[in-house]
Amino acid sequence: MNKGDKFTQSFTVSTDIYEGFKSLFKDLNPLHTNEEFAKGKGFTGKVMHGNILNGFLSYFIGECLPTKDVLIQTQEIKFLRPVYENDKLTLIAEIEEIFESVNTIEFKYYFMNQNMIKIARGKIQIGLMP
Amino acid sequence: MNKGDKFTQSFTVSTDIYEGFKSLFKDLNPLHTNEEFAKGKGFTGKVMHGNILNGFLSYFIGECLPTKDVLIQTQEIKFLRPVYENDKLTLIAEIEEIFESVNTIEFKYYFMNQNMIKIARGKIQIGLMP
Repeated sequence: MNKGDKFTQSFTVSTDIYEGFKSLFKDLNPLHTNEEFAKGKGFTGKVMHGNILNGFLSYFIGECLPTKDVLIQTQEIKFLRPVYENDKLTLIAEIEEIFESVNTIEFKYYFMNQNMIKIARGKIQIGLMP
Repeated sequence: MNKGDKFTQSFTVSTDIYEGFKSLFKDLNPLHTNEEFAKGKGFTGKVMHGNILNGFLSYFIGECLPTKDVLIQTQEIKFLRPVYENDKLTLIAEIEEIFESVNTIEFKYYFMNQNMIKIARGKIQIGLMP
């Protein structure tokens, strides 16, 4: 992997993912579960849990890189716009820095929805395991 | 909520959570699924997905605060030590800053395991919705 390398991965916030996330982590905050509540707050429907995107990032790092010998060291995410059920997201990640002395790679990334709107962005630092 | 307020919440990385996370997000990286592989990398067993902790943070913000009118704006996590299946974690979060002009609260937090070892720490910024 080299500085500037780009990776693209598609994800759908399907009903299965949404229901599975709720049943796993029990975050039933009304913003995520009550359509009327969410609309009352100015959204167009139930807002999906932002941490579903962090699950997608787990898959990206664990399964989509040229090596499996990786470990996430730090992760940050900024939620820019709401994500709704059945949104189709594209993750675009780019290697921003490689620290060879410590076998560390830093990615910057963003998620875009089907309307080409950036809905989140952040950075992930991973370690390469010998 | 006030600056300095502390919150404590317990979580177990149960087999159900681990299996559920794998089936939801499909991150089957060998570090998370192959005991021999993980031991070969110097760990004492399969390493749990770090993003399980981000799911716990979703529950904490969505369900454990004095108000439900919240929305995560930014989130960061640094993974310090491995988490293993059935580890019992304690989340300790503290309000570090309140930005009243923009209805924003910043928490710093860490997770400790059953051996009182800090396994992760980070910050979460949330917005309070009117």
